Amino acid sequence: MQLAKSVLDQYDRDGFVLVPGAFSPAEMDCLKGAMAEDVASSKGPHLITEDDGATLRAVYASHTRHPLFSTLVSSARLLAPAMQLVAQDLYVHQFKINTKRPFGGESWAWHQDYPVWRDADRMPEPRAVNVAVFLDEVTEFNGPVVFLRGSHRLGSEASSRQQANQAGEHIDPHDYALSTGDLSKLAEVHEMTSPKGPAGTVVFFHPEIMHGSAPNISPFPRDLLIVTYNASTNAPRPVGEPRPEYLVGRDVTPLVPNSWTLETIGASIARAES
Amino acid sequence: MQLAKSVLDQYDRDGFVLVPGAFSPAEMDCLKGAMAEDVASSKGPHLITEDDGATLRAVYASHTRHPLFSTLVSSARLLAPAMQLVAQDLYVHQFKINTKRPFGGESWAWHQDYPVWRDADRMPEPRAVNVAVFLDEVTEFNGPVVFLRGSHRLGSEASSRQQANQAGEHIDPHDYALSTGDLSKLAEVHEMTSPKGPAGTVVFFHPEIMHGSAPNISPFPRDLLIVTYNASTNAPRPVGEPRPEYLVGRDVTPLVPNSWTLETIGASIARAES
Repeated sequence: MQLAKSVLDQYDRDGFVLVPGAFSPAEMDCLKGAMAEDVASSKGPHLITEDDGATLRAVYASHTRHPLFSTLVSSARLLAPAMQLVAQDLYVHQFKINTKRPFGGESWAWHQDYPVWRDADRMPEPRAVNVAVFLDEVTEFNGPVVFLRGSHRLGSEASSRQQANQAGEHIDPHDYALSTGDLSKLAEVHEMTSPKGPAGTVVFFHPEIMHGSAPNISPFPRDLLIVTYNASTNAPRPVGEPRPEYLVGRDVTPLVPNSWTLETIGASIARAES
Repeated sequence: MQLAKSVLDQYDRDGFVLVPGAFSPAEMDCLKGAMAEDVASSKGPHLITEDDGATLRAVYASHTRHPLFSTLVSSARLLAPAMQLVAQDLYVHQFKINTKRPFGGESWAWHQDYPVWRDADRMPEPRAVNVAVFLDEVTEFNGPVVFLRGSHRLGSEASSRQQANQAGEHIDPHDYALSTGDLSKLAEVHEMTSPKGPAGTVVFFHPEIMHGSAPNISPFPRDLLIVTYNASTNAPRPVGEPRPEYLVGRDVTPLVPNSWTLETIGASIARAES
């Protein structure tokens, strides 16, 4: 899949673009099944819980454990547009699924992504792109991600770490939350907008766009898969102990787009398991 | 203001109707000023705070303290349509302003209103109507009220009080929250929908429609004025001590619609103060 020039321009202007129907509902069902398998068969710090210490909030690095995800990250439907947007060869810096459960899945504070990777991981430049895949339908009611349109063009000056560096830990965006004063000023200029759509929709968004999300007050889940691709030439250069591999990918080998479909993947998984 | 037959039919079917532009922005500015005056000049249990014990969450019965509100509740723009919808003479059962502050104004649990008034106040029938006036613009981002369309037609069977009666206290809708199981089933049949619009928009909604709201994650306030009109023949018949008058209006004299405008109200306030 290739993005048209007008779509690339839109990304430059807004900091995000929505691609409807990138995947089918059947493909999303399959990914949700794979997520359940991965969560059930793995334990460790890559499973992040809500404040209650029990409810799943996020799963990291499923692409290092499950063949459906290890092949997905090279899908031409995700990787090829990402390569267009960054104009570089790419690898997976981070893979996560944010599971926002019905009736209470928590909010995410307003933040930018790149300042975290800059400070915690020493990623040199924001030459990266986030790709969000809607595993569930996203509506105004189940806690969609909200962007400040065009705020990526401000760079990362607005964000400064509020707490000391916590090397080796999952970083909570609250540590990098934008101040309410700054955000009030920004929202006067940058429209709040939340891309929505059925399962299988994909949103590409810039690592410096300001975003947050509300809790899920609906009876409907909102599982959101996010792959962060980084330029292979832009790998982190950690000073001291790097954060764990489930947070910061080590293999910077450039990925090659594949033709990921349920049929081709079924075949590749069968080969991998034989 | 009179509602057309098609709008009355819509209310019967959906349990709510939105009336855009019922008031002007200048009128809403004036009401916000009056709210600030009322809050600043009054102390007592009619001021409800968030869990932090400090931030204002709701103000009750401003119409008993401030001339701008005491005249507003008889405005033909609110009262005349309410009389059409209930088809009875009406008085003010309850008046409140729910102030949902920027960056964190809290959610309201899913609930119906009438079961509270039935159990706590012994209101005989749901022959009442809520009228919500948008003091601020309501968007998808500042915690709009979300309705389950048409759920008023189910009546109040689904709601049962989860806690013992707390006569004399403000009743938190959490005490009457619908169970997540019930709500999941209801949301399969009744579409979630949230009326939105600029300041001055009015929404009439049924006392048995199921509704809730998310927190306000935006930098924009969401002050919502709600007048509950009840049929004068349907006044509560409390057993024992009734709840305080700021929660349960005592004066059941039928209201007569007036032509509330900033000009006429300025004159009536001047007369009242002379």
